[in-house]
This record gives sequence, structure tokens and C-alpha cells, in this order.
Amino acid sequence: MSFAPEDLSRDAFLRGRMWLYQPKSGYRSGLDPVLLAAAAPVLPGQSVLDLGCGVGAAALCLLARVPGARAVGLEIQPAYHELALRNAAENGVDFRPVLGDVADGARALQGENFDHVIANPPYYRAGAHTRASDAGRQTALGEALPLAEWIATAARRLKPRGFFHMIQRADRLPDMLAGCAGRLGALELLPLAARPGRAPELVILRARKDGRAPFRLHAPLVLHSDDRSLGNGKNYSPAIAAVQADAAPLPWPEA
Amino acid sequence: MSFAPEDLSRDAFLRGRMWLYQPKSGYRSGLDPVLLAAAAPVLPGQSVLDLGCGVGAAALCLLARVPGARAVGLEIQPAYHELALRNAAENGVDFRPVLGDVADGARALQGENFDHVIANPPYYRAGAHTRASDAGRQTALGEALPLAEWIATAARRLKPRGFFHMIQRADRLPDMLAGCAGRLGALELLPLAARPGRAPELVILRARKDGRAPFRLHAPLVLHSDDRSLGNGKNYSPAIAAVQADAAPLPWPEA
Repeated sequence: MSFAPEDLSRDAFLRGRMWLYQPKSGYRSGLDPVLLAAAAPVLPGQSVLDLGCGVGAAALCLLARVPGARAVGLEIQPAYHELALRNAAENGVDFRPVLGDVADGARALQGENFDHVIANPPYYRAGAHTRASDAGRQTALGEALPLAEWIATAARRLKPRGFFHMIQRADRLPDMLAGCAGRLGALELLPLAARPGRAPELVILRARKDGRAPFRLHAPLVLHSDDRSLGNGKNYSPAIAAVQADAAPLPWPEA
Repeated sequence: MSFAPEDLSRDAFLRGRMWLYQPKSGYRSGLDPVLLAAAAPVLPGQSVLDLGCGVGAAALCLLARVPGARAVGLEIQPAYHELALRNAAENGVDFRPVLGDVADGARALQGENFDHVIANPPYYRAGAHTRASDAGRQTALGEALPLAEWIATAARRLKPRGFFHMIQRADRLPDMLAGCAGRLGALELLPLAARPGRAPELVILRARKDGRAPFRLHAPLVLHSDDRSLGNGKNYSPAIAAVQADAAPLPWPEA
């Protein structure tokens, strides 16, 4: 259950601060795990759990950005877990991918708790998939594990006051908020809009264990500028260009 | 249980298309009911229920905008209900304010169903409590009833496929979405930002009875322009100026 060498590409992230082997076909990491990693205010010395880490894109971006942090990844698919192990070694950072299931509360990590949990769950179009009837089984690309289960597992693995960040399609917002109810608080929502004035297609949710602050809805962060003179290939807005090129943190709105 | 004449002001809405008696020192209607009324795609001949109608601001704005529509209002406070009756008569439109409670499922309207329900429930800062000196203002601003009950009553009074629109503080979004679960669908959220790039402080939620479409998060609608040359007093953005001055509908984003 491995990928053949000819089925892999090796791709640079954060302008070559991190390299990733990933399958040429199948799930490929793009901007989303980069943004997720840049949203979490991780400090040197802190621990991070990447739920459903895949080949390790988000965790490795995060470690490239915050030297001295350490990360654990949980991945259910052996071939992706194997690549995550390889990517951890190649990048020479403190990233430990573990084979295991989000659905069982991350039992593979029993007794471990983290300062941060991050998650980039598969994007299923709302309404396109029914709730997984067999809650323990999330197969390759078939069934969707309800977002509430990702959140429940995150809450279980967080230290008190720990941060949770999840990037997800905007149309899953009701499921995201419902999943946090009674588990995580101090919710903040950062919508991500492809261009100025466009409807946000993605959101980053921030929440804290034991958080009590009221919900906050932020102004959308715009990914691509309408200004064609910025010069970078994909016309990223200045904030996103800084995340990509300089491994800068995402400019999270202040209270 | 009435307001004394000297305690009332008579204020123009929609550039004088509608006039409203309201207490000088109680809950006073501003831009919010105007926006709420402009968000609902009411057609001539359709019926509208304004839950917690107060002195009738939202319902009367709506009837000023859509000739041939008819509205019923539900208001729990006798003094506000009395003023709503007066405002209905003075404006000469088909608006019937009814004294009754949102909390009992609008039993006062037993057997009646509507094409549209609109609501501008009291703004209660999540996690805080207002202390208002005025009793009416306290009822209007100081949360008595969970948003889920407003939504449950709206769902009960809607015809099949009927529209619900609610304007509310953005920090109540989790309560709003949770209240809709299992009752209303096809949710859409239009955030309202005071100025470009600012966090939206208010949102308008649209939902439909029996709706099944996925949740949609829209780009924020900006209320006040940064462009000081627009010339209108409060520097409203062009879309809001059109709502205020021309009784235009709110530019709701298309699918």
C-alpha cells in the first residue's frame, strides 16, 4: 500500500523552506494547508496535532514557520502516512506522523494532549454526501466523517486553553458551529475570498478549549488581488504573498 | 399603558415615503428595520409577518416599498402595539398589528400562515447584559427570548417555501444557525459591515421553509463608504443610499 516512485512529485512550499513528496494524482496539497498553518499562533516549544495530516503539508509548513515547535500528525491511509514519514525525515523537523483514525477520538494518541490542533478535513460539498452510517470507517475518498467528529476529537486532544484551527468550505459553516457547541468556545471565523467583493468559498475557524468569548465574524481575507501589477505569479494579495514567500503568519484580526 | 404625546417623535423613513411615531426615549428604529425590510423579496399580493414588530418600522418600510403587499405584526408590549396601530392608520397601508407573544408560537395568529416572516429581535451582546433604565427599551434590547424560539415561531407561521429574514448581531450567528437546524433550510448569510474591510457587526439571515440548498456565506455588504464625496449625510454606500432614498431592494447576491 505505497505509492510508486514514478507516481510522486516533489514540490516546494514556502519558497523552498519546505519540500513535500505527494502523489501526482489523488489529493494534492495547495494553498489551503499553507493558510491553515499560518493561522495558528504557535510559539516555539509548543506542540501541534494535525488531524488527517495526509502527507504532512500543514504540519510541515507550520514547523518551517515556527522553529522549535513540534508536531504530530494523524493519518488513516497507510500510503499517505508512509509519505508523511518520508517528508518528516527529508525536512529534518520534529514531525511524527501516526497511523490512526480521527473517528475513534484519536485513540492512537491516547494520553497525549497538545497546545494546538489543526485540521484540513476533506472538502465535501454540503448536501452531496450523507452522514457516514458506520461512524468508525472513513474509507479513502468515499464517506465523509461528520465535521462534528473532527471537532470532538480535536477537543479531546487539546490542552486547557488550547487552540483549534480548521480550514473548510464556507457552506459547511452550520456543521462547523454546531460541532463546536459544548466542546470549544471563543469561536472566530475568518472568511477567505478569492477576490475582493466575492463570496468567501473557504473559511478558517479558530476556537479554544474552555473559551468563553463571544463568537466573532471577521472581514474576509482576500487571497488574490485585482491589482495585476503585484508581479507574483498567481497575483496573491500582499498578505498571502507574505505567507507564501516569507512564511509570515496570517494577519489574524485583533480583538 | 400608553406613551404621552410629548414623549413621541414623528420621523420620516425612506425619504418621507413612510412616517413613524416612536418614543423619544425608548427603543428607536434606525437603519436596521429599513435594511431588514429591503432584504425580503416580497411580491405584490404576498403576506408578511413581522415578529416583535415594535411600532411597525420594518413592516411599514416593507409596505412602502411593495404596494399591494399586506403585513401583520406581533408585539408583546401594549404601548408599542398601540403606536403600531396608530402608525398603520397614519400611513394608510394594510398593516395589522396584533398584541401577542413570540414565545408561545404566536398563538394570537393561530391558523394564519405567511409568505414571509421578518424579525429584528432585540440585540443582546453575547455574554453580556444591558442595563436599560427604560422598561420598554429593556424589553426591546435586553434579551428575554432565545433566538431559537423566534425562529421556531417563524417556521410555524410560514407557508411552505416561505422566506424568513432576520437581522441580528454577528456574534449571535451560532445561535441563529443552531435555531434554524431542523426548522428552516437554504440558509444564506449577508454580513453587514459599517465600512470597507471592517468586521461585520450585523448580519441578515435568509432561510426558507422546506429549503434544501447548502448554506451560503456572502461577501459583506458595506453600509458607509470611505469615499467622502458621495454627498449624502451619513455617507451611505450607493446600495444603501438607494435603499434609503429610493426604497430600492437590498442588492442580495445571486446564486
